Amino acid sequence: MIKVGIVGGTGYTGVELLRILACHPAVQLTAITSRKEAGIAVADIFPSLRGRVALAYADPSAADVSRCDVVFFATPNAVAMNQAGSLLGEGARVIDLSADFRIRDVSEWEKWYGTRHASPDLVAQAVYGLPEVNREMIRSARLVANPGCYPTAVQLGLLPLVEAGVVDLGHLIADAKSGVSGAGRKAEIQLLHAEASENFKAYAVGGHRHWPEIRQGLEQIAGRPVGLTFVPHLTPMIRGIHATLYARISSGAARSARPAGVDFFQRLYEQRYRNEPFVDVMPAGTHPETRSVRAANLCRVAVHRPQDGDTLVVLSVIDNLVKGAAGQAVQNMNIMFGLPESQGLDQVPIVP
Amino acid sequence: MIKVGIVGGTGYTGVELLRILACHPAVQLTAITSRKEAGIAVADIFPSLRGRVALAYADPSAADVSRCDVVFFATPNAVAMNQAGSLLGEGARVIDLSADFRIRDVSEWEKWYGTRHASPDLVAQAVYGLPEVNREMIRSARLVANPGCYPTAVQLGLLPLVEAGVVDLGHLIADAKSGVSGAGRKAEIQLLHAEASENFKAYAVGGHRHWPEIRQGLEQIAGRPVGLTFVPHLTPMIRGIHATLYARISSGAARSARPAGVDFFQRLYEQRYRNEPFVDVMPAGTHPETRSVRAANLCRVAVHRPQDGDTLVVLSVIDNLVKGAAGQAVQNMNIMFGLPESQGLDQVPIVP
Amino acid sequence: MIKVGIVGGTGYTGVELLRILACHPAVQLTAITSRKEAGIAVADIFPSLRGRVALAYADPSAADVSRCDVVFFATPNAVAMNQAGSLLGEGARVIDLSADFRIRDVSEWEKWYGTRHASPDLVAQAVYGLPEVNREMIRSARLVANPGCYPTAVQLGLLPLVEAGVVDLGHLIADAKSGVSGAGRKAEIQLLHAEASENFKAYAVGGHRHWPEIRQGLEQIAGRPVGLTFVPHLTPMIRGIHATLYARISSGAARSARPAGVDFFQRLYEQRYRNEPFVDVMPAGTHPETRSVRAANLCRVAVHRPQDGDTLVVLSVIDNLVKGAAGQAVQNMNIMFGLPESQGLDQVPIVP
Amino acid sequence: MIKVGIVGGTGYTGVELLRILACHPAVQLTAITSRKEAGIAVADIFPSLRGRVALAYADPSAADVSRCDVVFFATPNAVAMNQAGSLLGEGARVIDLSADFRIRDVSEWEKWYGTRHASPDLVAQAVYGLPEVNREMIRSARLVANPGCYPTAVQLGLLPLVEAGVVDLGHLIADAKSGVSGAGRKAEIQLLHAEASENFKAYAVGGHRHWPEIRQGLEQIAGRPVGLTFVPHLTPMIRGIHATLYARISSGAARSARPAGVDFFQRLYEQRYRNEPFVDVMPAGTHPETRSVRAANLCRVAVHRPQDGDTLVVLSVIDNLVKGAAGQAVQNMNIMFGLPESQGLDQVPIVP
Repeated sequence: MIKVGIVGGTGYTGVELLRILACHPAVQLTAITSRKEAGIAVADIFPSLRGRVALAYADPSAADVSRCDVVFFATPNAVAMNQAGSLLGEGARVIDLSADFRIRDVSEWEKWYGTRHASPDLVAQAVYGLPEVNREMIRSARLVANPGCYPTAVQLGLLPLVEAGVVDLGHLIADAKSGVSGAGRKAEIQLLHAEASENFKAYAVGGHRHWPEIRQGLEQIAGRPVGLTFVPHLTPMIRGIHATLYARISSGAARSARPAGVDFFQRLYEQRYRNEPFVDVMPAGTHPETRSVRAANLCRVAVHRPQDGDTLVVLSVIDNLVKGAAGQAVQNMNIMFGLPESQGLDQVPIVP
Repeated sequence: MIKVGIVGGTGYTGVELLRILACHPAVQLTAITSRKEAGIAVADIFPSLRGRVALAYADPSAADVSRCDVVFFATPNAVAMNQAGSLLGEGARVIDLSADFRIRDVSEWEKWYGTRHASPDLVAQAVYGLPEVNREMIRSARLVANPGCYPTAVQLGLLPLVEAGVVDLGHLIADAKSGVSGAGRKAEIQLLHAEASENFKAYAVGGHRHWPEIRQGLEQIAGRPVGLTFVPHLTPMIRGIHATLYARISSGAARSARPAGVDFFQRLYEQRYRNEPFVDVMPAGTHPETRSVRAANLCRVAVHRPQDGDTLVVLSVIDNLVKGAAGQAVQNMNIMFGLPESQGLDQVPIVP
Repeated sequence: MIKVGIVGGTGYTGVELLRILACHPAVQLTAITSRKEAGIAVADIFPSLRGRVALAYADPSAADVSRCDVVFFATPNAVAMNQAGSLLGEGARVIDLSADFRIRDVSEWEKWYGTRHASPDLVAQAVYGLPEVNREMIRSARLVANPGCYPTAVQLGLLPLVEAGVVDLGHLIADAKSGVSGAGRKAEIQLLHAEASENFKAYAVGGHRHWPEIRQGLEQIAGRPVGLTFVPHLTPMIRGIHATLYARISSGAARSARPAGVDFFQRLYEQRYRNEPFVDVMPAGTHPETRSVRAANLCRVAVHRPQDGDTLVVLSVIDNLVKGAAGQAVQNMNIMFGLPESQGLDQVPIVP
Repeated sequence: MIKVGIVGGTGYTGVELLRILACHPAVQLTAITSRKEAGIAVADIFPSLRGRVALAYADPSAADVSRCDVVFFATPNAVAMNQAGSLLGEGARVIDLSADFRIRDVSEWEKWYGTRHASPDLVAQAVYGLPEVNREMIRSARLVANPGCYPTAVQLGLLPLVEAGVVDLGHLIADAKSGVSGAGRKAEIQLLHAEASENFKAYAVGGHRHWPEIRQGLEQIAGRPVGLTFVPHLTPMIRGIHATLYARISSGAARSARPAGVDFFQRLYEQRYRNEPFVDVMPAGTHPETRSVRAANLCRVAVHRPQDGDTLVVLSVIDNLVKGAAGQAVQNMNIMFGLPESQGLDQVPIVP
């Protein structure tokens, strides 16, 4: 059994980690820490876990998470960067669900996150935990930077096009819509039911922290600079991200693709993902719904070419808390520990 | 492996049965029928099941569900009563999620369901599938009438009080609130998002089909007539039932209970349900939320005695599609086939 | 033109007051104060009011609301009690939307609101602003205590029965469901969309502050003690209260009512409210929906007698922010200033 | 008083027309027809209108709507085209809220709407009722084709850019999100609360009927062909459209705009709309919310230029039932009859 510790764990990614790990056959939940809730049973904060999680939150100073084989950070940004180093030193592996180790350019990270990075050296060691791109590196990683929710949906949606080099990389557009749980379990006016329900809005059009993360990922894949316009929106639901992606077919590709029509791109996606357990390429002409992946570790994508024109429209959906956070983190753990990649991740989506 | 057939299965209880059975380790999904969707893959109707359920809907006339060990009816009312008999004759066991075999008094059934009963003889054989009351009879049953969603929440909420005879049985009140999935996957104006969202209403105050079912259940437990006012409401959410139950403490009980205060009733509930795997008595003073059982086969109850007065308030929550339908049906199957009662029913509730 | 000032006004009752008063033909919005938002334009906080409300929030110390003819307090509890006295002294009239002057028994108020009352003398002067009961007193009032949202829905629902003395006053039950805006514009975890959506729960079953207010109102009407069980619930919508009220027909009334059946009670309601501009008695057998009064100053009620038994079920719906708060406050203002009672209150409910 | 008739009026645009017209000081509601609901009082179908609309639905054959000064068609597509001619012949003016007269190219209309057009000659007479573009022509129009909801939001969002010729017209992108009321009051499975709530999806990516309408409008403004990718989405709310629009700054414009930065485009919008009563240009850097126009005849737009790059992002919100349907229809009526354009359209948006 893998001994698992969780630092943080009072937010939505934390409770989702607990939901998944509580059923994982190879895992022993060993410790969970929270300064604020120290001494309180997890099931008192989250009654949904009554009878399933017996742990209480421990004070971070008292809990010895370093005895664990792996420690998940489900903390706000700028916490893991202070604690990961000593855990790694004591032999634990670390999967960070926050943003601390996602951006390789430390000064870029510091600009977007508004603080000095406490462990720039660890950034270089960290592996970006998108298994569909970095599976082999994750296998041997000691420190995994679990991707953000928008970056997961957008990168998986664009990956085949960017790898194949068949679209104009200078002007990609990602119009993304997220349920409110993506903003975390924070007491903010704008996240109240009375504010967020029966309402739709864009936010951070001028610049969102996931923009540099997505660009870095796409540029790594492409091997050259990528131009991206990224507009996130808040949609009145709890879970789910729907990314609508627009890419202009590059002239060379357009020529070679024409004979094949939409099928060229459909096949491109099907071949790229045919061995991926958690990416489902939908049939041509379909529209994946966010609920079709609700509470499951899945990304479903569909590729469209409206009016046989030069603009592709890719639809990509995930559950932001699962494939966009806790589920992907467990997928990374499975890979790191040589377990079957799908172990403990076979939840069927909840519909309706 | 138990060979399972499903008749119907294009509605919400059907897709929920499929979600649960797809992961059940002792079950082999063998056939599913639908006249309307015959020939269509289940996963084409419910993309959430892509990769998890390989069956296609078969035409009822062609499918040989009688080869199955057990057949679930997830059909509208008045279908199972025509088909259960022959299946039973061929040796299959039947679990009916519709209302056809729930009411023992056939003329009462006919009054509420507006049609002649096709198999009055089978009604007598059927066992009412509320395991917390009838577990032993379910073990050997050939035909189980799976309880309605409201009746499950209300009966489990009132059971300890009625068994103990400590409340006025002549004037019980059940104020129940249901998410819209309880009305089924039917194209009706009043169930549209634009009608049911951001709206709350009572319905069928003059008389609802679950009223005679609840009364019958309570009267069987009490051994005498029960007076019940039952008011169902439609609440703007998908899943969940919250029953708020009001009972006047009978004068004898009030006297004996006084020294112990609320604890007398708290203990009554805890003792009654201490061995029940799917009923959770919440701590005194708490308020169970419907989401705390979302997508899980659970009933959580809490008992209150406001201002130490003579009126008890019991709060009982279930997911109407799980403990109120498909989950309870699988629980009954487990009991009927001698499997561990919780097998395949260990889903952790989805929060948030 | 009546010069109107608002103290507070950054919460939901505040913005609703502004929405209504911005269109009121006899009103001149003169000043609005907020310590926290001083100097900020109202329309910057509430863009829905862009082009309609030109005021900025003023610091309470700087704003001279005493020049106003009437001052509305849309503040948290325990603010108005400190400021109303001096405003009254300077000649302004005061309508308090908070709870400071609702409970006549000051020690009872102090028990429920957890603080010493700063102006017990003013409590005696205050008129409880439920026009359907106290219209004449409101006409000449200097200080009106605007009723709470639940108390408005429950009292209007029970009023005809209590006045007529035809039900058992010892055991009334009010099962009330509220949208989340009733809890105010407060940054609390439990009010987040991700917590309150797709969820239903009771709260404060042990005792809610509106319980003594409702009892006081009913006892004033009845002229004797009233026993009331009051259970509030949070329902996943923004606006609306649905009160489901249970009352046992008293034996005398049952006898006299029998010949007339349900019509006796239907007529009782219709006669009681036939001249009320803002209470609509629905046809017998119907179920009022909360959306049928959304954004309008209306209470709709329906009375049922299920199975011709001895328990009446009354359904009463309001928009908690309008008839349950800001609309009723403007109705009171109209009465106090001799304006047509409906002036500025003719908004048609928003459906869908 | 203008005598108004409504044909249809059992759907959402119908009830919204009634809500607005019931308060319009220059209007006398004279007749409303519905084959299906003939003989039923409007207020029985829509209890929100109890006490406000006294009409009953009349059978189309019996009702003499031709006596009206203006007739609104709130019917499904392909109804008005059969009836408008005779009404116009009898002297009534017609405002069609359906799509029958929106597309000037009749064969194009027939392709998208799948039927032969019954009155191609009338198409040529009809004026497209977008007042911000065609105000003068509307003044004297006998037949107005009221724009679709998406086309209103998209055209008002792009209008200043297209008129000024400062963006690449060959590759405009409109990513639009609509609440479910946009689909009408139709009993369809996909519109059920249990399907549409807590879910987000794109639809009709391959081609939506509003695409040719938007293109026609933009091409008329531009005076040359326009390339447009239009992707509509269903978002889990009742009312509201949010269009997120992407346009590449054309190289000439980019040069001239650079010195001025974002302000060039901000000023462009402010100047274009400075005299428009129902278009509000939000301050630079802001994000309009759909609720900020809920239940009001308003379009709010904001223009962004992320990272000072070459792609503009315009955010445009309307209430699909008001500025996207019934409100705009009344605005057109006001213009046609020489009334103040805002008369009866001063509803303040409902927040929260």
